[in-house]
Amino acid sequence: MNYYGDPVTNLIEELRRLPGVGGKLAQRLAFHIIDMPEEKVYRLSDAIRSAKDNVKYCSVCCNLSDSDPCSVCSNVKRDRETIMVVEDPRDMAAYEKTNEFRGLYHVLHGAISPMTGVGPSDLKIKELLTRLGDGTVKEVILATNPNVEGEATAMYISKLIKPLGVKVTRIANGVPVGGDLEYVDEVTLSRALEGRREL
Amino acid sequence: MNYYGDPVTNLIEELRRLPGVGGKLAQRLAFHIIDMPEEKVYRLSDAIRSAKDNVKYCSVCCNLSDSDPCSVCSNVKRDRETIMVVEDPRDMAAYEKTNEFRGLYHVLHGAISPMTGVGPSDLKIKELLTRLGDGTVKEVILATNPNVEGEATAMYISKLIKPLGVKVTRIANGVPVGGDLEYVDEVTLSRALEGRREL
Repeated sequence: MNYYGDPVTNLIEELRRLPGVGGKLAQRLAFHIIDMPEEKVYRLSDAIRSAKDNVKYCSVCCNLSDSDPCSVCSNVKRDRETIMVVEDPRDMAAYEKTNEFRGLYHVLHGAISPMTGVGPSDLKIKELLTRLGDGTVKEVILATNPNVEGEATAMYISKLIKPLGVKVTRIANGVPVGGDLEYVDEVTLSRALEGRREL
Repeated sequence: MNYYGDPVTNLIEELRRLPGVGGKLAQRLAFHIIDMPEEKVYRLSDAIRSAKDNVKYCSVCCNLSDSDPCSVCSNVKRDRETIMVVEDPRDMAAYEKTNEFRGLYHVLHGAISPMTGVGPSDLKIKELLTRLGDGTVKEVILATNPNVEGEATAMYISKLIKPLGVKVTRIANGVPVGGDLEYVDEVTLSRALEGRREL
């Protein structure tokens, strides 16, 4: 199998280990990297190393960050009474792009999923409860994904938080903006009807 | 746009520059890399750098290799009278996997394509002609891709080589083994008919 020499075969093997990268893409990437100018290859290699070396979890919200606390948690303009709970840093980034939410976040780093062996103790739920301890937070918005795992996680967390006297809300289900009703699944349609608002 | 801190954003940007890696995959890869154990991240980073640093073109066949001449060209068991001309190191690897061809290769690194500005001088054609100089080679098999660019390249090279008195052949067109006739295009079907062999 070693037709190109060890360094290329080795690079293809390493790239193949990445998620979403199959054999063909790994090969294509490897050849592209070899054809790239030297300084660009070094920049890629260093970016990988540096991301691993310099990125830590924010000790407050558990988001990925190179500073601690992260830029959101240390921003004095953010509303400290509301925390949005998300599964993933990407979900947080998605909400940040809307520029609508001015509160703080809490990143769980996953969702409860017995099928893949992820239980509540694998998530940053303890850290969330600690943040609610001093009574500053008035509302926790559960923005876990609208799938089975996300719903289960939201239910689990709401049961833990409600006894603390904090308001717990869940982001709305409904038809996506710009979508076409005829292509929306039935569950979403009934949820949209259920959640209808007066105009 | 910088929700995760500079090292992560930087890594996502670098990964996005790779072919076949869009914004979403770049993000997914970046987060995966951050979650990987340190030694695996370093191994990936080093593999990228090492492939660039150690891989050269074989001075005989222009294949990618860490040794010069490459392992095929320096293998005394290979038949030195036949050269198979391919566009790409991957095509060479594909033929090597068949374990059928015992001759040498020549890698053009592309095909003639006026649309993308690739002319004969951008390919390793001069290097091929140099190899034919000493009269050892009896046959050149043109195994460029069976598309417009590959056919044009094969035609161009055959016109250059024929006057040298070297036999020039082209790999056969026909129906792929294991395929279903009803899904094969007409051009391939007529080529398969044309190239029929007596049993």
